[in-house]
Amino acid sequence: MSETCALPVAVDAMGGDNAPGAIVQGAVDAAREGLPVVLVGSDAVVRDELAKHGALGSLPISVKHASEVVAMDDHPGQAMRRKKDNSIRVCFELVKREEACGMVSAGNSGAVMAGAIFVLGRLPAVERPAIISVLPALVGHPLLLDMGANVECKPIHLVQFALMGEVYARRVLGVARPRVAVLSNGEEVSKGTDLTRTVAAALRNASGIDFRGYCEGRDLLTGDFDVIVTDGFTGNVALKTMEGTARVVGELLKQALKSTPASAIGGLLAKSALGAMKKKIDWREIGGAPLVGVSGVGFITHGRSDALAIRNAVRRVRSAADAHATDEIGRAAEQGEALLAAVASEAETVNLEHERARTAPPEA
Amino acid sequence: MSETCALPVAVDAMGGDNAPGAIVQGAVDAAREGLPVVLVGSDAVVRDELAKHGALGSLPISVKHASEVVAMDDHPGQAMRRKKDNSIRVCFELVKREEACGMVSAGNSGAVMAGAIFVLGRLPAVERPAIISVLPALVGHPLLLDMGANVECKPIHLVQFALMGEVYARRVLGVARPRVAVLSNGEEVSKGTDLTRTVAAALRNASGIDFRGYCEGRDLLTGDFDVIVTDGFTGNVALKTMEGTARVVGELLKQALKSTPASAIGGLLAKSALGAMKKKIDWREIGGAPLVGVSGVGFITHGRSDALAIRNAVRRVRSAADAHATDEIGRAAEQGEALLAAVASEAETVNLEHERARTAPPEA
Repeated sequence: MSETCALPVAVDAMGGDNAPGAIVQGAVDAAREGLPVVLVGSDAVVRDELAKHGALGSLPISVKHASEVVAMDDHPGQAMRRKKDNSIRVCFELVKREEACGMVSAGNSGAVMAGAIFVLGRLPAVERPAIISVLPALVGHPLLLDMGANVECKPIHLVQFALMGEVYARRVLGVARPRVAVLSNGEEVSKGTDLTRTVAAALRNASGIDFRGYCEGRDLLTGDFDVIVTDGFTGNVALKTMEGTARVVGELLKQALKSTPASAIGGLLAKSALGAMKKKIDWREIGGAPLVGVSGVGFITHGRSDALAIRNAVRRVRSAADAHATDEIGRAAEQGEALLAAVASEAETVNLEHERARTAPPEA
Repeated sequence: MSETCALPVAVDAMGGDNAPGAIVQGAVDAAREGLPVVLVGSDAVVRDELAKHGALGSLPISVKHASEVVAMDDHPGQAMRRKKDNSIRVCFELVKREEACGMVSAGNSGAVMAGAIFVLGRLPAVERPAIISVLPALVGHPLLLDMGANVECKPIHLVQFALMGEVYARRVLGVARPRVAVLSNGEEVSKGTDLTRTVAAALRNASGIDFRGYCEGRDLLTGDFDVIVTDGFTGNVALKTMEGTARVVGELLKQALKSTPASAIGGLLAKSALGAMKKKIDWREIGGAPLVGVSGVGFITHGRSDALAIRNAVRRVRSAADAHATDEIGRAAEQGEALLAAVASEAETVNLEHERARTAPPEA
């Protein structure tokens, strides 16, 4: 397979708060950069939008008709079964038939995950695919998974998230030796829940990955860890807590800069530097959240995505597809069961020794 | 009992990274404001520290000897049993004997909780006392509990956290009608875990409290909710995620203001406004985390507490003691079991009706 895939990125033109206008705009912007895209949605609607952008002439952009749309409040599984020609599903069918190298949607995120599983399927060993949140850290882009697809998790899920995330960081983001950690309420091995302790014990035995044990909420954005695993409930709370905190601090900053005449002038002088800072933590620069554990490349972007977010998402889908990491992700996940079995058998040996010591006759 | 309690606040002089110097300094500062304090720790050590502050003459400050110290890495329960004359335990004994109106320690937080339970005891109906984190929101001071004492929780724990937190917000912080919510991964009732759904169902039936259902990580600092309950694992992750995010945004701000000559001048002009903003989100201004569900007033402050943090903590212990809310907190917690029983019996009725419908003979 060639290093760079010539297939277009499938873009769900109908998903998200700003569809179809902003989505089509973002796709056109990506095509202008030379990235081939196929817009998926109502042919008439998409062509109307495209017409607004004037002569597209030689741009690598095409349209694939899909007659139905998944609403934001549709039940994901039902939408996939009942609306068989919905734009999310059609995107995944293009990927499945190798007519697109990957897809992105700003629509119903549950439906995107459901569509990936229905159409592409899970990788053979993977119990639960996950959604990866790519974080804007001081240094690098740590991966936090799962960010919400799997609310209640078993040890095998988190162990596989770690193994899959490690491959993703290495192969797609180019991190030479990703540092992997389990999110917990403290650094000591005695901290955490039964779930986190079992997962950490299993990963400690994983050969070939750089497992660093527990990390804490305060480590998410430092860049000290590259892959951080947690259940989807905690991941969702952590992610929204970051968003909320950044927004509140930004709001306080805005208030502070308005509070006195001197600070207002200061704010004007610092405006472009503050703008650059804002860009650094802007979710639209991140380009969406990749799915991992399914047989192909799919990205979920924010429901509020605008053209900038979509163009960046197309770039990221492209890099992910060009990395051809799916097979290696699948092989990594296969190790999960054995790692957990080893922990269980260690625990049994320890118990057995305790039992022998307890029942042994006193030494003569 | 009088509205304002004349008893001193017991301050653990030996706990925390900056003990005893900064702790004694903070206690002296509080005493200078007219707040009576009793410093608990090695008599010689504390008196040496006090001597550095010159003539204390008429200040309402006294010393109570405690011969032992709990180390930061001591096992909390063992420390309480083996070091019977440790400064944390002696603080709680002063509270128990009504020689102090409450206590504060910057030491081993597990040991502070253990000491509270050993010496003061749990309130009769309370299954698990909790640690309340008082958050610096845009508006007001929302309470998040539990912030880490109870890592794995059952429904009764979270229901009682909500009921107790509601009384605390009303009686101690003076919030007229506290808005109570359960932290979850989405607003819809279908979201969350078995734990959060059961807790939300129970609280929905609670009369006399303003229960608002689920809130999300992004709502923690807006001030839209006054009491937010979660298990100690999630609470700890959320709290440290807030701290870490605020620190990273602050770091980015500092970098931005250094990035160009214009922004550097801007930063200088805005300096005092930015300082006021920093103060607003400074944990040292919060004054520590109250324990709730034990028979008396105890506060845990940050291990890195300095004199400012300690002085503020003494003020907060004082307000909490003056509110005389402990009995009402205990009565509120008593309703927990009944609220959960009602949910269980509702669920049974629904199941029974389903079963009847399923097994009923077809209508003629």
